[in-house]
Amino acid sequence: MLARARPGAVAESLTAATEAIIAAGRRMDRFGWVPATAGNISIRLSATGIAITRSGGHKGFLDSSGVILVDAEGRPLTPGDRASAETGLHCGIYRRFPEAGAVLHGHSPAATVLSRVSGDAIRLAGYELLKAFPGLPTHEAAIDLPVVANDQDIPRLQGVVEARWREAAGQPGGVVPGYVIRGHGVYVWAADMPGALTRLEALEFMLACELEQRRIAR
Amino acid sequence: MLARARPGAVAESLTAATEAIIAAGRRMDRFGWVPATAGNISIRLSATGIAITRSGGHKGFLDSSGVILVDAEGRPLTPGDRASAETGLHCGIYRRFPEAGAVLHGHSPAATVLSRVSGDAIRLAGYELLKAFPGLPTHEAAIDLPVVANDQDIPRLQGVVEARWREAAGQPGGVVPGYVIRGHGVYVWAADMPGALTRLEALEFMLACELEQRRIAR
Amino acid sequence: MLARARPGAVAESLTAATEAIIAAGRRMDRFGWVPATAGNISIRLSATGIAITRSGGHKGFLDSSGVILVDAEGRPLTPGDRASAETGLHCGIYRRFPEAGAVLHGHSPAATVLSRVSGDAIRLAGYELLKAFPGLPTHEAAIDLPVVANDQDIPRLQGVVEARWREAAGQPGGVVPGYVIRGHGVYVWAADMPGALTRLEALEFMLACELEQRRIAR
Amino acid sequence: MLARARPGAVAESLTAATEAIIAAGRRMDRFGWVPATAGNISIRLSATGIAITRSGGHKGFLDSSGVILVDAEGRPLTPGDRASAETGLHCGIYRRFPEAGAVLHGHSPAATVLSRVSGDAIRLAGYELLKAFPGLPTHEAAIDLPVVANDQDIPRLQGVVEARWREAAGQPGGVVPGYVIRGHGVYVWAADMPGALTRLEALEFMLACELEQRRIAR
Repeated sequence: MLARARPGAVAESLTAATEAIIAAGRRMDRFGWVPATAGNISIRLSATGIAITRSGGHKGFLDSSGVILVDAEGRPLTPGDRASAETGLHCGIYRRFPEAGAVLHGHSPAATVLSRVSGDAIRLAGYELLKAFPGLPTHEAAIDLPVVANDQDIPRLQGVVEARWREAAGQPGGVVPGYVIRGHGVYVWAADMPGALTRLEALEFMLACELEQRRIAR
Repeated sequence: MLARARPGAVAESLTAATEAIIAAGRRMDRFGWVPATAGNISIRLSATGIAITRSGGHKGFLDSSGVILVDAEGRPLTPGDRASAETGLHCGIYRRFPEAGAVLHGHSPAATVLSRVSGDAIRLAGYELLKAFPGLPTHEAAIDLPVVANDQDIPRLQGVVEARWREAAGQPGGVVPGYVIRGHGVYVWAADMPGALTRLEALEFMLACELEQRRIAR
Repeated sequence: MLARARPGAVAESLTAATEAIIAAGRRMDRFGWVPATAGNISIRLSATGIAITRSGGHKGFLDSSGVILVDAEGRPLTPGDRASAETGLHCGIYRRFPEAGAVLHGHSPAATVLSRVSGDAIRLAGYELLKAFPGLPTHEAAIDLPVVANDQDIPRLQGVVEARWREAAGQPGGVVPGYVIRGHGVYVWAADMPGALTRLEALEFMLACELEQRRIAR
Repeated sequence: MLARARPGAVAESLTAATEAIIAAGRRMDRFGWVPATAGNISIRLSATGIAITRSGGHKGFLDSSGVILVDAEGRPLTPGDRASAETGLHCGIYRRFPEAGAVLHGHSPAATVLSRVSGDAIRLAGYELLKAFPGLPTHEAAIDLPVVANDQDIPRLQGVVEARWREAAGQPGGVVPGYVIRGHGVYVWAADMPGALTRLEALEFMLACELEQRRIAR
């Protein structure tokens, strides 16, 4: 077990990770991105340990009891802890992107509605905030934010996501800006929590603009 | 009188209930769901006592004087207290749903506007947040949120609501997700206040999405 | 001078009035109703004295230096104080409605936009929150919120407002719910500041709903 | 180096400028105008020194380490500091407008979307808040807010902005209300930070109203 192998190191980083997860939840709540018990948040502590929000509970009012440790396959490291079903999507991101250190999943009205009325991608083009994504040094780019169908079977859903990642390799700069589950919400990641929050805010800003533009430009 | 029968127990739970009601009012105010003196909030303390917001006053700035005790028929337990007319709707919910322990009524622009332009129900389908309602383990469901006409005659209004509840028994999972009074607002309930707030946030999120979708998808 | 005639009484009530004005400004700012240096706020202290926000400055960040005393004609009672030009509209309300004790003027996008696209009134009908206005015990009413053209000549503007008040006497319950200056904002009043805030929130809620309904129901 | 020439004076004003910049960033974040690492903020300390937000970082969570000193050409005065590329636009404003003491650049959805669907200007007419701009003592005016194409080549972008400023001299009152970079955001300035925030709030309010009006008045 992770906590047994290197207790001091993990305890220390778990404390910092828990604080960062609590703060991220509050920030997401400020924008209305974690309604009800929606959303989940994680930080990778090591190759074998991930701190992630527990199943259920409001992500805007987390305390340290709301964060649990799971292994790379999403199994709780403390007996009796219950991981959210969507933990598997976090693990899938950490597996595919070795540089990823933090994952955010939120439910915004913009992401929810746009994904309900879009096909298999939402195109984002010409926004200065595209520069928030690595590999895009300019606004003169167009990236496709993948939209996947919602599915309560998380391994199957993760398989669909991975297929989309393979396709995304052909995008400008090879950018994988995150993805949206239809009627459900956004997943983004970065090397650390500030980076993940930056990408989430950039993505949600562009989705809000897309929605606004559809309101007036029909 | 309730407070006489088991004074200690009730006093203790009344204090906790009052705190939970005050906090719920602040949360609802943060989203703009209790404008002016709108909205009301209650917690069931026992088979014969309900703590509920007093008539009038802003629900975002409650203190303990803003919460009164009423019996199961909505009559104030302290002489001189004045219960809101809508107390009868809270009592109706507690009478019909023995498992209900907290009731929230708020006025959001989304619920108000959608109810004004809808027939006798607002259909919610395909949202991940449908899972916030018991009996719906998946987003692959469609539920009808009943819309009833507004009526200043509360017993008559409660009669209409009860008729809709009988019809709702045929929904997937037998789910009764709450109801909306046209041009007025939402009623939701759950076993306790965190549960009721979870359902309110889930419902308002879906209503906000529905409204947004109607803006762009006409 | 007012402060000389009954110094103790006035000083005391001026302190309370200033606190209420500062708090009202913060509340209005929370909703975005006092952008830039927009909006003004007053409380009537006596037949001859009114506490009102000074010209200029942000109404969301007031301190006691931002509130001055004027007489019933809007003339500053302290030499050197500069009253806002719109002080005359506050005085006009206090002159016409002896029961008025507090006046609020805010700039919301909803009031601004609706007044720009409306004729000489905005009709509000069927809202539960109509009950926030005296004389309307039911939602089954329709009232016309007068819209007047903006005018930098405040006495002339006040003359137009008074003509509209005379017409409004024929409305259900004789209700005068406030008025909107086109492209500029809302004026509301009540016996005291909590009452004025209640009416402002009720009115702005209904205007937000009207705007929303026009977005989807065209 | 500035800090060497008049150390005491600059240190003092740098402290005040840094506090004003931090507070402005928080205020802009409250409205959602500095998503991700977007936006930048500066104050002119003297003819040769400007305090400006460092490249990167969230402008809603600045501390003193997030503000650096640059010279009139935008070169960092402390070796190792990295100025944002857009520092050149701040310098261009200070060069052209000797009375400018503070510059704000924010990204709002309204400015972003309107600039994406507009030609080379956004016309603002009939708003009371036009009076927030010097030279416009009345709402009975129409000004054109210049929209320029986004460009990662900042000197070239600044050249385009200057050409627009020359054209703007013919506007009512010679007003130059700021400008918008397409898909990117607004630049405004004033003699000091409160003045710049006033203009930013006034401009964003009118842009929000324009967007709203396009939603309902098509």
